[in-house]
Amino acid sequence: MTTPTWLDIRAAHDRIRPYIHRTPVLTCAAIDAMCGAALFFKCENLQKVGAFKIRGATNAVFSLTDAEAAQGVATHSSGNHAAALALAARWRGIKAYVVMPENAPEIKRKAVEGYGAEITLCAPTLQARETGLAAIVARTGAAVVHPYNDDRVIAGQATAALELCEDILPGAGLDMVIAPVGGGGLLSGTALSVHALAPGIRVVAAEPERADDAWQSLQAGKIIPLVHTDTIADGLRTSLGDKTFPIIQQHVAQIVTVTEQEIIAAMRLLWERMKLVVEPSGAVPLAAILSGRCDGMALRSDGKPARIGLILSGGNVDLDHLPWMLSRDASPR
Amino acid sequence: MTTPTWLDIRAAHDRIRPYIHRTPVLTCAAIDAMCGAALFFKCENLQKVGAFKIRGATNAVFSLTDAEAAQGVATHSSGNHAAALALAARWRGIKAYVVMPENAPEIKRKAVEGYGAEITLCAPTLQARETGLAAIVARTGAAVVHPYNDDRVIAGQATAALELCEDILPGAGLDMVIAPVGGGGLLSGTALSVHALAPGIRVVAAEPERADDAWQSLQAGKIIPLVHTDTIADGLRTSLGDKTFPIIQQHVAQIVTVTEQEIIAAMRLLWERMKLVVEPSGAVPLAAILSGRCDGMALRSDGKPARIGLILSGGNVDLDHLPWMLSRDASPR
Repeated sequence: MTTPTWLDIRAAHDRIRPYIHRTPVLTCAAIDAMCGAALFFKCENLQKVGAFKIRGATNAVFSLTDAEAAQGVATHSSGNHAAALALAARWRGIKAYVVMPENAPEIKRKAVEGYGAEITLCAPTLQARETGLAAIVARTGAAVVHPYNDDRVIAGQATAALELCEDILPGAGLDMVIAPVGGGGLLSGTALSVHALAPGIRVVAAEPERADDAWQSLQAGKIIPLVHTDTIADGLRTSLGDKTFPIIQQHVAQIVTVTEQEIIAAMRLLWERMKLVVEPSGAVPLAAILSGRCDGMALRSDGKPARIGLILSGGNVDLDHLPWMLSRDASPR
Repeated sequence: MTTPTWLDIRAAHDRIRPYIHRTPVLTCAAIDAMCGAALFFKCENLQKVGAFKIRGATNAVFSLTDAEAAQGVATHSSGNHAAALALAARWRGIKAYVVMPENAPEIKRKAVEGYGAEITLCAPTLQARETGLAAIVARTGAAVVHPYNDDRVIAGQATAALELCEDILPGAGLDMVIAPVGGGGLLSGTALSVHALAPGIRVVAAEPERADDAWQSLQAGKIIPLVHTDTIADGLRTSLGDKTFPIIQQHVAQIVTVTEQEIIAAMRLLWERMKLVVEPSGAVPLAAILSGRCDGMALRSDGKPARIGLILSGGNVDLDHLPWMLSRDASPR
């Protein structure tokens, strides 16, 4: 089993930098006061396609040889990875093939189509998706880019934490970095970057209680697949992969699980106080910090608050169906 | 009539820099494609108190002598300026007195109280507000800080455009800067900064059609007070002042008015594509650009798209009452 090295991550950053945004790192005094810490928000919601996913997809697409690239890239996905891969392929001028379940939201189909990808619809089962993808690969010879269980993707996602550390380390540094965990691409990449740049920084994961497969997997010492997929954090409804799990086992100090209510409250706080459109998955790390269940938040030895980096992973949300509206709609009349 | 000089603006920036955020300048390829220009968004919605208002208030508060400051500051306002003045006063460790109409939204009262200001409620008329303020000044000797018709406030608001130009000018520069206009504090400050740094850049104002007093004033050559105050852009429901109007007359090339529908569409675009919570007033400049009624958007002589700076003035909005929800609620069932 290989793992992306620090050189792979630096190379990924050089490769993708001309295409992606260097997203800002923002702070909020009001939220700091609420949790007694100094928080640094890496705003990947402001990234192209509205999520960090463009980093891994772009690194994978631009890592291909010209001969490989000529046959295009392919994936099955109903989410941000499909849009990211389609856009990265367009940047390179190659074809992207995306297998999507028929029940994928219209808006996501439109986004993928808008970036010029060729969509193949299939039944909404994992088997149908894999069969559909295999057929496309057999026909076209396209290179498959998995949404997270791929070294090139992990190295790409790692560049978000690399930038966060570059922006904050010159000052007083960070004590902790916290990222959400779904399939583990962002988390394992974050762990690798932080470990390489500043091994003393604690890496923590935040996960919905209703999709706590990563927490269970760490307890069990093996990958426990996700069973329930009903969390509001739709970006985190995936199981760990055999490439991401070992990295997480090695470098992640704690996985904090949070309730649906905690996710919604954190999301609303980010909108209200920081003026950022963040999707539920992106609010999960702040929910973990605010829960009080995150270790390592005590004052520093110099008496100052702990300094914590959070990855706001994405901002793709349906503005007509916000969770605080839904819960109000559902309340008794 | 004095007008803030470039030295005043630079001094204001040095004075307020330790307190405020240097807000990011963001770009969006999708919106650029929609309007055939290269847009640079100065994100004052991400500013402290959620609006550029903290710049002017902080400059005014820290411009006071110690003897003046000891007696506190006072204003009448129901909006962002009151919160900004309260926070700036807290930073300086002095009292802030705010006269607010009894019908001001609870959320705004709470914000001003939260920053430690002393609130005096009054009847919701301009006369009651002015009488209330005069009584406080007579009792306390507090220094009045007007929301816009004040040189210190204008110089403070000017620092947003100063930062925008500093961040963009080293590259290929800007052809136009566009800001919303209500009382004219932000617009006149923007015009002064742009004129000082790069006199060739066109300064444009954007204004709701339903509150087009600035447009009318420029036509008439004198200040025409605002009559209607029913635009959704609640930050722009004010008339020009005798300090802001002459600066606007001298330096603003065009005032573009936009409809309520155009404002809501631009606001939604900023949320959806840029993942930014922007209030209606802050979306007015983008509405003007998208309307096609803005002059000076032709390609540059080098064949490249025009480069336009926009000031996203604020992000304070009630998340339970978003305009696209309201309009849906109001549609036939």
